[in-house]
Amino acid sequence: MDYEAPAFFDLMAYARNADGDVIDMVSGDPDWGSPDGIGEGLHEYADLGGADFQYPPTEGLTELREAVAARRGVDVDRVVITVGGGEANYLAMALGLEGWPGSEALLVDPVYPYYPGKVRMLGGSYRYVPADRDGRLDPGAVRERVSEETALVVVNTPNNPTGAVYGERTMRELVALAEEYEFLLVSDEVYDHFDFSGRFTSALEFDSPNAVVTNSFSKTFAITGFRVGYGVFPSAEVADAARDRHMLTATAGVRPSQYAVLHALETTDPAYHDRSRRTLEERVETFTDALDDAGAEYMSPDGAFYVMARFEGFPGTEGNVRRLIDEAGVAGMPGGAFGESRADWLRFALVTDRAEEAADRLAAYF
Amino acid sequence: MDYEAPAFFDLMAYARNADGDVIDMVSGDPDWGSPDGIGEGLHEYADLGGADFQYPPTEGLTELREAVAARRGVDVDRVVITVGGGEANYLAMALGLEGWPGSEALLVDPVYPYYPGKVRMLGGSYRYVPADRDGRLDPGAVRERVSEETALVVVNTPNNPTGAVYGERTMRELVALAEEYEFLLVSDEVYDHFDFSGRFTSALEFDSPNAVVTNSFSKTFAITGFRVGYGVFPSAEVADAARDRHMLTATAGVRPSQYAVLHALETTDPAYHDRSRRTLEERVETFTDALDDAGAEYMSPDGAFYVMARFEGFPGTEGNVRRLIDEAGVAGMPGGAFGESRADWLRFALVTDRAEEAADRLAAYF
Repeated sequence: MDYEAPAFFDLMAYARNADGDVIDMVSGDPDWGSPDGIGEGLHEYADLGGADFQYPPTEGLTELREAVAARRGVDVDRVVITVGGGEANYLAMALGLEGWPGSEALLVDPVYPYYPGKVRMLGGSYRYVPADRDGRLDPGAVRERVSEETALVVVNTPNNPTGAVYGERTMRELVALAEEYEFLLVSDEVYDHFDFSGRFTSALEFDSPNAVVTNSFSKTFAITGFRVGYGVFPSAEVADAARDRHMLTATAGVRPSQYAVLHALETTDPAYHDRSRRTLEERVETFTDALDDAGAEYMSPDGAFYVMARFEGFPGTEGNVRRLIDEAGVAGMPGGAFGESRADWLRFALVTDRAEEAADRLAAYF
Repeated sequence: MDYEAPAFFDLMAYARNADGDVIDMVSGDPDWGSPDGIGEGLHEYADLGGADFQYPPTEGLTELREAVAARRGVDVDRVVITVGGGEANYLAMALGLEGWPGSEALLVDPVYPYYPGKVRMLGGSYRYVPADRDGRLDPGAVRERVSEETALVVVNTPNNPTGAVYGERTMRELVALAEEYEFLLVSDEVYDHFDFSGRFTSALEFDSPNAVVTNSFSKTFAITGFRVGYGVFPSAEVADAARDRHMLTATAGVRPSQYAVLHALETTDPAYHDRSRRTLEERVETFTDALDDAGAEYMSPDGAFYVMARFEGFPGTEGNVRRLIDEAGVAGMPGGAFGESRADWLRFALVTDRAEEAADRLAAYF
């Protein structure tokens, strides 16, 4: 095996097993609750039994695909329902590495830790394109590094871990680069319901043969354990290739979960999403205010639900993360988990209603 | 993409869209109903919400892994819960091709159609080892074809499509060959609850560092749409490598489904499995009696729920499968889908209570 797991599992276990009261800001597990439609849908499904407990269509339940296609304004034959956003990214990255010239991926640093592992697992190599100070991506920095070897560029907007949201101009230029240099742009948009800036622009806006959009209901409906995501591929042909790999990997997607998600899509008031987003925005404000009090430097997120911060004289190493757990009662992630550029930083996930308390603890500690 | 999808989806659609009444014996979707514990477990889970709707541990819910380990008599750290048996096979085959010397897989012909596609997808090549007339595998035939290039041998017992059950001697010799020639033996045992012969022997019996057993609850509990399978790996280290690939492919398994399966494991009377098996045995008997009447040659299954048959002067081509759908009202699978050796044959899945009627239709037609 020449790939490896993201290194944060040990830290999650360490935080869980700590003696004192630790506020867990490590994982990305939403804590604000799912819409009622999820539980209702599961209850409905549980009574069906028989044929409804068997394989869904490989590409996903037809009604769910239709609902996704209608919301995204694309033809249904471009949509494949996957085992979460994780599988959607795996499929899209495989398409890029196998179907496009070259065998190299450009990833943005700071990077979502699963991307490098996926590229390696798929037999590709990768290079980092550094984000700017604010976590934004300058398409010019991609242009500087793109080559004939570039099969794939993967972006995540709104971004984990930086909270950056790529605007219309950035996305337009990335799509144009993909077409000019013949690579596949994979735009992972799983945090699209958590844009505080109003600037979020999906790669789908540009209707390009070189762009795949991946997404998931894991964050949208606070159901990371259900494993329902999707890819919107440039054409029915590319979607069919993704579906075939999906079939050879997982046989089919998850019918109970797809059924529940469909029910939630049909019944959830948009106010649910507004509430979730406002909850996160308020946490961001509270948390960053307290970081100011603590004298920390931080990246102000425009979306998603993470804050990267740096404390003077306290680099975000694994050792220091353990110290924070033991001595301050706050568990974050070491910056080195997210590429090379922010090894001194820490990432805090705002998935707890104790974010303010955590920030106070940090302020008191530093 | 240098792999491709099994070719039976077109036929399934053709059968579904046919004008007349067609008895569907194409897919492997059980029709005999799940134990009550599945629906009960889902109902229970649906009310939990919150943290219980989030990612399960990457390797699967601890209690489910413990239940599997106890039933299989292995250490829990050798068990990884997967997205169905399909993902378990994908992981095991990847381990074989990446972790063992060589890049070739030996597959048994007739073959389960997903295996060749998975090998190709994983960058390997494959050769067939022919089964004997009755579908049994002579380990000597494996020995004849094994070489330094052999990374992987994949067997399926009880077998889809032949119904063969590999006995104690065969499994012992296959495991010994794996150790002698340093390849990974993957034993796919998803039909282990459907052994009519009493001869089924799991590869786990031999506790070898060269054997992985894959299994699934899809057939066991008639829930192919839930996507809960597992691998039992030779050691905790190999299981960790499988878990890492699982994480990079699907992030995690499916929590609602794992919860429901755990509940069903705790509450299902063994009589449920006896009933399911007897139902299948009776269908096999009825169906093969009628095949006798139709003058067909067939392979008598010792397990699983498929019958391969050959009709004089009517090779099992795709064209003839369509003719049978249109003219006899019975949908089967062309033999060519299962490798090279039985292209003249047809496979019928006994997943309908109309198996007798189907056989009568075939007898009348021929």
